[in-house]
Amino acid sequence: MARYKLTLEYAGTRYSGWQIQQNARTVQGELNRALAEIARGGKLESYGAGRTDAGVHALGQVAHVDLGIELPPATLLARVNDALPHDINVLAAERVPARFHARHSAVARSYLYQITRRRTAFAKPFVWWVREALDVEAMRAAGEGILGLRDFRAFTDDDPEEKSTRVLMQQVAVATVGDLVLLRVVGSHFLWRMVRRLVGVLVAVGQKNLPPGDVARLLLSASDLPARLTAPSSGLFLESVFYDEPPLDLELQPAVFGRTR
Amino acid sequence: MARYKLTLEYAGTRYSGWQIQQNARTVQGELNRALAEIARGGKLESYGAGRTDAGVHALGQVAHVDLGIELPPATLLARVNDALPHDINVLAAERVPARFHARHSAVARSYLYQITRRRTAFAKPFVWWVREALDVEAMRAAGEGILGLRDFRAFTDDDPEEKSTRVLMQQVAVATVGDLVLLRVVGSHFLWRMVRRLVGVLVAVGQKNLPPGDVARLLLSASDLPARLTAPSSGLFLESVFYDEPPLDLELQPAVFGRTR
Repeated sequence: MARYKLTLEYAGTRYSGWQIQQNARTVQGELNRALAEIARGGKLESYGAGRTDAGVHALGQVAHVDLGIELPPATLLARVNDALPHDINVLAAERVPARFHARHSAVARSYLYQITRRRTAFAKPFVWWVREALDVEAMRAAGEGILGLRDFRAFTDDDPEEKSTRVLMQQVAVATVGDLVLLRVVGSHFLWRMVRRLVGVLVAVGQKNLPPGDVARLLLSASDLPARLTAPSSGLFLESVFYDEPPLDLELQPAVFGRTR
Repeated sequence: MARYKLTLEYAGTRYSGWQIQQNARTVQGELNRALAEIARGGKLESYGAGRTDAGVHALGQVAHVDLGIELPPATLLARVNDALPHDINVLAAERVPARFHARHSAVARSYLYQITRRRTAFAKPFVWWVREALDVEAMRAAGEGILGLRDFRAFTDDDPEEKSTRVLMQQVAVATVGDLVLLRVVGSHFLWRMVRRLVGVLVAVGQKNLPPGDVARLLLSASDLPARLTAPSSGLFLESVFYDEPPLDLELQPAVFGRTR
């Protein structure tokens, strides 16, 4: 058996999320099907670094798969892309040792969230349109207040993967690019719906509906506020999965968009 | 009656082009319906500066319409956008004198074409994916060879609008931005399918299937080559309509795209 690491981008709009399901179209389901076509060895299982929800996109999801055939990675890349639908695209394929595991070997993840400040004819599946003015400085201050090792139980529900709710939050960045407000969070791992709830809470801060200091306080007690403020899936992208320490000086740039004026 | 000038962007993917038709969803049809809802005065007719084909997009289509009610342009803008589908967006509304005509008053138009050099999960409805290497310098040279007042009869079929086939071609620009090759043409007017045929011919030059000098020669005689090389509608955007001399020093930037690496 030969293990391959695949880095892939996808538009989540048409899919019921990453995770394979019986009667739904999923990204992992499409990937497994494409890989099985190539390997011709019956059923195949890929393992993803993160489970993205329905409608959530990826710029750099990582998966690994064991194939019964040895193929030059460039050949595998070309063949799997030929077998995939147009909105799933493998960016890189590498041969990796059997000890590599897409999820367990990952030390950090980065998510990007796109908010648009104007109506757009082109980017609707990839943004959240927030009409009110946003105080980006207040959002930044709130984000700085939750850096470090924190318990994010208050920002999730029961986690099917039973991950620790203690997350090392390494970066919360907020930037304005044209009509877009972009958010990036980098952390050890993220719990179910945690990023979308955090974005929703930070937007409430930006709208001056919540003082910046309240965000850190929300972590300390059970409240349904984060769930009620959940940001829509359309704006969310799994940006990168890191197998070494993540660089924290990366420029915050849009994932997909029309011209920003 | 009050005449309004509307500047609008749209994703043409879901529409059978700009021009209103009986049994098809068109951009103009949607716009007329939205405007009639606001004016509550029965049927309404808008006039567009250019007829974009099915699947062709616009960044700056211009239309005019006469309304029986006087509205502040900002109010009209907000109301018409509330009544339009998400992939049609009015960018600007202005009150104009009755002598203004979206098509007849226009002195030049600009079209943008997006070619991508790599497979992309996000941008498929907005690009043409050309796998082969492109000699951008040769494309540029071919474009310079057709500047000025020229007869483009060889690049169109019978024109339903019976426009003159003599076109003043003011700019043919080609630039590389990341994985994209962008083309812009600016001219007095464009004939049916002319831009897509010109792009197809220039791409054949870029692929070294046609010498740059042959493009100007193609104008001089009837040939089915331009029609056979027609570029797909997905990559084409009506970029701007000019009512004064067009600026020819505009930076060539992408319309809609995923990250360009």
